[in-house]
Amino acid sequence: MEIPEVIEERRLCRGKRVALVQRVYRIGNDFVARDVVCFGQSVAVLAIKNNKVLLIKQFRPPIGRWIIEIPAGRVEPGEQPEQAAVRELREEVGYEPGRLTKISSVYPSPGYSDEVIHIYLATDLRYVGASPEAGELIEVIEVDMDRALDIVLSEGVADAKTVLALTLFRMLTT
Amino acid sequence: MEIPEVIEERRLCRGKRVALVQRVYRIGNDFVARDVVCFGQSVAVLAIKNNKVLLIKQFRPPIGRWIIEIPAGRVEPGEQPEQAAVRELREEVGYEPGRLTKISSVYPSPGYSDEVIHIYLATDLRYVGASPEAGELIEVIEVDMDRALDIVLSEGVADAKTVLALTLFRMLTT
Repeated sequence: MEIPEVIEERRLCRGKRVALVQRVYRIGNDFVARDVVCFGQSVAVLAIKNNKVLLIKQFRPPIGRWIIEIPAGRVEPGEQPEQAAVRELREEVGYEPGRLTKISSVYPSPGYSDEVIHIYLATDLRYVGASPEAGELIEVIEVDMDRALDIVLSEGVADAKTVLALTLFRMLTT
Repeated sequence: MEIPEVIEERRLCRGKRVALVQRVYRIGNDFVARDVVCFGQSVAVLAIKNNKVLLIKQFRPPIGRWIIEIPAGRVEPGEQPEQAAVRELREEVGYEPGRLTKISSVYPSPGYSDEVIHIYLATDLRYVGASPEAGELIEVIEVDMDRALDIVLSEGVADAKTVLALTLFRMLTT
């Protein structure tokens, strides 16, 4: 399928973690400007131990509330996604995986963000101690695999990658 | 759980569809600055007709490629999410639903965006003709319900809300 030509791209501003750019495309005879939030790659990890899922309850400034998520974070410069998955799992819940398997990769918001989330399954977990980043408010909770999806969905508005990881895992294993 | 106090919020810049603000929180004795992409509410619609799913193949500037998605878009000022779902379904694929049911609401990127996506199931569809927005490159495809998830996942990196709608629907109906 036709890929429209990029005529111009200019950065509108840069925050601490994301930049906002405006990209202008030529589509037929029209020039169309689109916002692009530049974020890059991130990882999320469905970590399972003795049929329990390791979840975190975390304060998220953009939505102004605490929300239940699987461990997740950004792929830092120079990292491979698998390395980021192992690092985030250790930092946020304190476990190292013996096995790490890719479940899926998804675009959470392709309408305005370039983010790609790589979702992994982590098993054969070994406790090594958590080390959350400064300024992150995190509480770790362990939840029965069978109850995890209900708990996450019961929040009213749930975290998309967490629901996705749980539903895809359930479909792959049943 | 404790909700940290917002000390300051300032807009870094505004694009055509999103704004980037920086929000400063007091967490314990620390001041923590976080980027927030202000987007607001959106809708996505799993539309099913004779056991086929109505999907669109759409060029998405932020990721620079065409991707298969369920019909979706932003809740415009003054609209209720249900109205936006009906409007987007009509504009993008040309159908009006006799029944519209909420499947779930999710945050696609709570780490940096305030977006909430409301996902609906649309059935009892009646064709009224599509009217895509200027500058949107869209192709409508109808796919067997049983094959839809495989087709979407086969793209390598898939659209999160589309996978979510398909997996949640499958779990609700089996």
